[in-house]
Amino acid sequence: MGPSSRNDSRAHILGRMISLLEGAAKEGAQLVIFPELAFTTFFPRWPYEDPAEAAHYFETAMPNPNVQTLFDRAAALKIGFYVGYGELTPEGQRYNSALIVGPNGQTLLKYRKVHLPGSHDVRTGQKYQQLEKRYFSYGDLGFPVTRGPAEWGRPLMGMLICNDRRWPEAWRVLALQNVELVCIGYNSAAYDPSGGEAETAEIRTFHSTLAVQANAYMNATWAVSVAKAGVEDGAGLIGGSLIVDPNGMIRAQAHTLEDELIFAEADLDLCLQGKEKIFNFAAHRRPQWYRPIVDQVGAVEPAQAAD
Amino acid sequence: MGPSSRNDSRAHILGRMISLLEGAAKEGAQLVIFPELAFTTFFPRWPYEDPAEAAHYFETAMPNPNVQTLFDRAAALKIGFYVGYGELTPEGQRYNSALIVGPNGQTLLKYRKVHLPGSHDVRTGQKYQQLEKRYFSYGDLGFPVTRGPAEWGRPLMGMLICNDRRWPEAWRVLALQNVELVCIGYNSAAYDPSGGEAETAEIRTFHSTLAVQANAYMNATWAVSVAKAGVEDGAGLIGGSLIVDPNGMIRAQAHTLEDELIFAEADLDLCLQGKEKIFNFAAHRRPQWYRPIVDQVGAVEPAQAAD
Repeated sequence: MGPSSRNDSRAHILGRMISLLEGAAKEGAQLVIFPELAFTTFFPRWPYEDPAEAAHYFETAMPNPNVQTLFDRAAALKIGFYVGYGELTPEGQRYNSALIVGPNGQTLLKYRKVHLPGSHDVRTGQKYQQLEKRYFSYGDLGFPVTRGPAEWGRPLMGMLICNDRRWPEAWRVLALQNVELVCIGYNSAAYDPSGGEAETAEIRTFHSTLAVQANAYMNATWAVSVAKAGVEDGAGLIGGSLIVDPNGMIRAQAHTLEDELIFAEADLDLCLQGKEKIFNFAAHRRPQWYRPIVDQVGAVEPAQAAD
Repeated sequence: MGPSSRNDSRAHILGRMISLLEGAAKEGAQLVIFPELAFTTFFPRWPYEDPAEAAHYFETAMPNPNVQTLFDRAAALKIGFYVGYGELTPEGQRYNSALIVGPNGQTLLKYRKVHLPGSHDVRTGQKYQQLEKRYFSYGDLGFPVTRGPAEWGRPLMGMLICNDRRWPEAWRVLALQNVELVCIGYNSAAYDPSGGEAETAEIRTFHSTLAVQANAYMNATWAVSVAKAGVEDGAGLIGGSLIVDPNGMIRAQAHTLEDELIFAEADLDLCLQGKEKIFNFAAHRRPQWYRPIVDQVGAVEPAQAAD
C-alpha cells in the first residue's frame, strides 16, 4: 500500500484496500496480505500527551462498522486476507494486532505484536518519533500457528508484524510449529529512526529484504512481507514488499511506493526439502546449548579477559 | 583454501597454509581465518567401517608435531589465526573442533561443533556420504566468547563451524555475550548432500552467503566465513568465503575455488548502531515467548484444524 495521511478518511483508505482486493481476486488470488496498521497512517510517529487522543486509530472489535465493507467484499469474492490494525480491548489495553480472515469471512488467527520497537517517552529534538512502546502493550498471545482451509491446501500459517521479522526467535517459534506460510505487514521508516544518519532508505530496505529471505530459508517456509510505503505527512516509509520461497529466494517484489499488487503461487511442498533434510529440527537441533535465549534478556559480556 | 585430496601429505597442506599466512601478514593482516578441518580432506564424505581407520585425520593435542610449523610461523609473524581440525581426546572422544590462536601463539578460545549435519549410518546408493554424526560427538562446550588481545582492539570473539552458521540459535547465544566478531570455517558440498537434485552449487552458495549476512545483521556483529572449496577426490565443495560487516553487507568475497586471500579491516564500533538501537536486546527482546526454542527439539504441529 502507498501512504495514508492523518487527514485521509477511513472511507478513502478502505476504498483503496477494496480496490486492491478486487484487483487481486481478478488475477485469481486466494489470500491477500495487507500491511501493519493498514487502516490508518503510521500514527506512532506522532506524540500524543494522552493515548486516548489517538482513540480513532483503534478498532474496538473486528470486524466493526468502520471496516465491515472490506470484510463483506472479501467474503463475496471468497478471498481471505491478513490485515494489521490498532486494537483497543474492552479492558482498555491497546495492541498492534493482525488477523488472518478466511475465504468465508471467519477469523482464522489473531496475533498481537511482540517486538515493539522505539521508545515509551518522546525523544526531544527528533522530527519523527517511534512511540510504539507508548501506544501499545506487548503482545500476549505468543506466536500462534493455525492450519488454513482446504481451498488453500491447508497451509500451516503464522503471523509477524513489522519489527518482529528482524527477530529470529519469532520465526523459530513459528517454525517449531511447522509453519509453511508466514504473513507479515510492516511500516518501516525510510530514515534512521534513532535520529542518526547511519541508516538510509536503501540500507533499511536491504535489511528488510535480507531478514525475510534468510529467516524464510532457515525455517523452510514461505513468507510474504508487505509494506505500507511512501511519504506520510512528510515522513518516509520504505517499500520493498516481497514474496519469498522456502529457499529464501524472491518470487515477487514491489517496485513502487504506491498501491501495488504482487503475486506468487506458493507450492507448500517446497517446504519439505528444508524441513526434512538440512533443517530437520528433531535430527539436528541441540536445545541444551540454547538456554541463554530464554534465560537472558540483554547481552552479558563474558567475565574473562585475555591480554 | 582450495581442495585437499586424501593422498595429499600433511606437509603439503601445511605448506599451503603457511604460504597463505605469509601472504596475509605481508598485507598487514593480524588475524587469519582458515576453514573447517583445514589440515585434511573433508573425510566425513567417506565411509569407514571403523572410525579408528580415520585416526590420521585427528589431532591428539594442539599444537602437535604435525601442525607445529604453522603455529611457529604465525607466532614469528605475530599473527593470530582460527583453524578447524579433527580432535581426538585422551578419552577417545572425537570432535569437529576449532581454535583461535593469539598473536603470541597462545590459544585464546576453543570450540567444538554443536550442529553436526548428515547421518550416522551410511546411506546406500549415495556416491558421497555426510557422516559427521558417525565420526564426531556433538560439541559439549556451548558457544563460548572471549575477548581478544589489545593489538586487535580487544574484540569479543566467538566461533561457529560450517553447518552452525545456518542455525540462528547459535548466533544468538554468541550475541547474548555481545560478540563483535564471529569466525567460521566450512566445507559445504557443491551438490545436494541428501542425494537429490533440489540444490545446485549456486543455490548452496546463495544459502551460505544469505545465512551469514542476515545473522551478522540480526546480531550486529562482524562475521568471517571461510570455505575449503573445489573438487576433493571427485566431490565438489562450494566456495564463497566472505567478510560481512554488522550491517550484513559484504566487505570482501572470494572469487575462486583455490587458495585465495581476502581482506577487510573490521571497525568494531560499527557494531554499536545495531547493539545500542534496533537490536538493543535488553530493551526489545521478549524471552517469555521464546520458550519452545529450548523446550522442544523437533517441530510439533498445532492441534487445532480449521476447515
